[in-house]
Amino acid sequence: MSLIVQKFGGSSVADAESIKRVAKRIVDTRKAGNDVVVAVSAMGDTTDELIDLAHEVTPLPEPREMDMLLSSGERISMSLLAMAIKSMGYEARSFTGMQAGMITDAHHGAARIVDVTPVRIREALDDGAIAIVAGFQGFNVDTAEITTLGRGGSDTTAVALAAALGADVCEIYTDVDGIYTMDPRVVPLARKIDVITAEEMLELAASGAKVLYIRAVEFARRHGVTLRVRSSFNSNEGTLVINPKEGDTVEQPIVTGIATDLSEAKITIVGIPDVPGKAAQIFKIVAKTDANVDMIVQNVSAAATGLTDISFTLPKEQAQIVLQALRSEQEDVGFTALQHDDQIGKLALVGAGMRANSGVSAKLFEALYDNGINIDMISTSEIRISVVTRADTLEKAARAVHTAFGLDAESVAIVHAGTGR
Amino acid sequence: MSLIVQKFGGSSVADAESIKRVAKRIVDTRKAGNDVVVAVSAMGDTTDELIDLAHEVTPLPEPREMDMLLSSGERISMSLLAMAIKSMGYEARSFTGMQAGMITDAHHGAARIVDVTPVRIREALDDGAIAIVAGFQGFNVDTAEITTLGRGGSDTTAVALAAALGADVCEIYTDVDGIYTMDPRVVPLARKIDVITAEEMLELAASGAKVLYIRAVEFARRHGVTLRVRSSFNSNEGTLVINPKEGDTVEQPIVTGIATDLSEAKITIVGIPDVPGKAAQIFKIVAKTDANVDMIVQNVSAAATGLTDISFTLPKEQAQIVLQALRSEQEDVGFTALQHDDQIGKLALVGAGMRANSGVSAKLFEALYDNGINIDMISTSEIRISVVTRADTLEKAARAVHTAFGLDAESVAIVHAGTGR
Repeated sequence: MSLIVQKFGGSSVADAESIKRVAKRIVDTRKAGNDVVVAVSAMGDTTDELIDLAHEVTPLPEPREMDMLLSSGERISMSLLAMAIKSMGYEARSFTGMQAGMITDAHHGAARIVDVTPVRIREALDDGAIAIVAGFQGFNVDTAEITTLGRGGSDTTAVALAAALGADVCEIYTDVDGIYTMDPRVVPLARKIDVITAEEMLELAASGAKVLYIRAVEFARRHGVTLRVRSSFNSNEGTLVINPKEGDTVEQPIVTGIATDLSEAKITIVGIPDVPGKAAQIFKIVAKTDANVDMIVQNVSAAATGLTDISFTLPKEQAQIVLQALRSEQEDVGFTALQHDDQIGKLALVGAGMRANSGVSAKLFEALYDNGINIDMISTSEIRISVVTRADTLEKAARAVHTAFGLDAESVAIVHAGTGR
Repeated sequence: MSLIVQKFGGSSVADAESIKRVAKRIVDTRKAGNDVVVAVSAMGDTTDELIDLAHEVTPLPEPREMDMLLSSGERISMSLLAMAIKSMGYEARSFTGMQAGMITDAHHGAARIVDVTPVRIREALDDGAIAIVAGFQGFNVDTAEITTLGRGGSDTTAVALAAALGADVCEIYTDVDGIYTMDPRVVPLARKIDVITAEEMLELAASGAKVLYIRAVEFARRHGVTLRVRSSFNSNEGTLVINPKEGDTVEQPIVTGIATDLSEAKITIVGIPDVPGKAAQIFKIVAKTDANVDMIVQNVSAAATGLTDISFTLPKEQAQIVLQALRSEQEDVGFTALQHDDQIGKLALVGAGMRANSGVSAKLFEALYDNGINIDMISTSEIRISVVTRADTLEKAARAVHTAFGLDAESVAIVHAGTGR
């Protein structure tokens, strides 16, 4: 008998019919002889609708009250799900974040889990019941207040429960069949990945892959939780996200997957005096704006002028405030101009096998060159190579690289249309 | 400085605009120098919508999960209300039933309040904040489960808080101007009552008046809480519901108000052997069906036959099951026939002054006789006289009696159209 944690997102429980379908899926897992704990999100767009309602009442809702408001969403979905399971003849009990022992810090709206004490969950399991837990929400002990975990919080709830309960696997149900070598909406010949390491998954998620939230994968990696990403619309095996221990001889492909990202802009600071400390000075200014800087590239200084350029990428919507901050310090830093480019695309190649293989960059650059695609920036980690190209050549680049690294499937992927959240 | 508890029902907080209007009303009370605690219902029809959703999922929702589901409604309204107040520059904190210390028995769906420990409410007041409490919900300590109080539960929440906090007054905001001598939709010349005793209010509510729930008035009477029923759409004084102590010389009108009720049916058991124990036998059968018997009348036995008839009234929807129960025991009881009449109307005259005044019945019967209205049944309590007439003469009867007892106002009442809940 295994202990399985299952997470169902909002689109899986959007209405009464979906809730009944999910209940059947849970009951099937129970019938197969497993203990089951479920983390569930609010129904459909409930959370967004509640946020809209709050903004109708006041432009700046109080974070504590916002958490009180938003945490009502999962109470609705979890109680309905428990009712549906009970009506199928199986015992089920729903639990709020607090009842489930999801203890967080006091940071309303983006609380971090500091401990999980799932006493009532264990009791429910001991009684033979299926435990349904409200995703996305927790409880701060010092303030006795209800908190929420922020976007993707339900994935984190599921992984944290799996870690605390020592579950055999944490299944993340979504509306796609698993993790793909590349978003099938961009590259139709994308292949579903059977097994991926959490490390690779993290790099893909950080590079724009949307199926899993970085935070949940990080949590899973840190606590050694095995994830399975699978569709709530069929019984396919999905993708297993594993945490190989050091010394495990897992055969790792050179390239496991590719992610693309059109959400970033590039800022270039032109004509910076090439003296020590300038980069630190610049990124201290940027850091003050709370911008999430991604790639940074510094050109080699032209010896004749003693000036250099620095480019970096960041989320498009953060560009204006950073430009403004830099402009106000232009005299002090001493650069000559600022350039802003929001028509860039980022492509990332991820594979744990890169560690042991050289020549990956060369092959990547060649594939792009052969297809007439210019590279604007390059950045690498141990298991990832990212390049920035023009936005309008990104899809072509992705298809070319997907083929060049032998990732193409023999037939076009059939995936359920949806948001992939 | 007074401590005022205010209760706002679903129709008062139906949307963002209404919530802002209610917030302003609360802030005005605070500005006037009072401490304010608010009990609030779920927005508009939220509770009914959640019940419908549950029935889409399963025909017999588990009561524990139903409470988990329904208790989400007030979390939404209370947090939005707290946000709205804060946006007006006043401190406000919302509290769930549990956080407010609303301790109940474990009876899901119709829990009774067993204790109120409003520690966090007092803290909030001490900090100068307005406390917003979820109506309708509580918490059972033994099971650590969330409960709901049943229909009208938010009124009960407000009264229980007022009692526990020793509030000066508990204001029940509704969509009518207060308690009327008679439903103004039936008798346009109905007059708003300025002061009524809780005892009279109870008799009116039990006789069909819809403005306050019996349970909340009972609670207020038992704990000596003064209620004020007033409109959330204007600043009129409304109706004060008081608890005069014995010996208080309150001048009490002979008739304070009139209630009518079309929701009952009459069952007559014909030809019952007039021997001791028959009535007990019959009402034991009726009690087993859980029917709510209201008036009972037994005819004088006709000496010649040794047979008698018994009539009683009960809610229309309970008539069939009671008839069935009686039929199945016909042989044993020995009656000759059953009659069922669902075209009856009940009219009740209520007034604490009846205690000290005779001749009220005579005046009532005369007024009805003068208007050609037949009386079918009569029942009296210390401060009430009820009669059953034909349903189609009930409104005429109400107007005639209203005039006869000098209750008519000089002009037609202007009341806000609405449900009066």
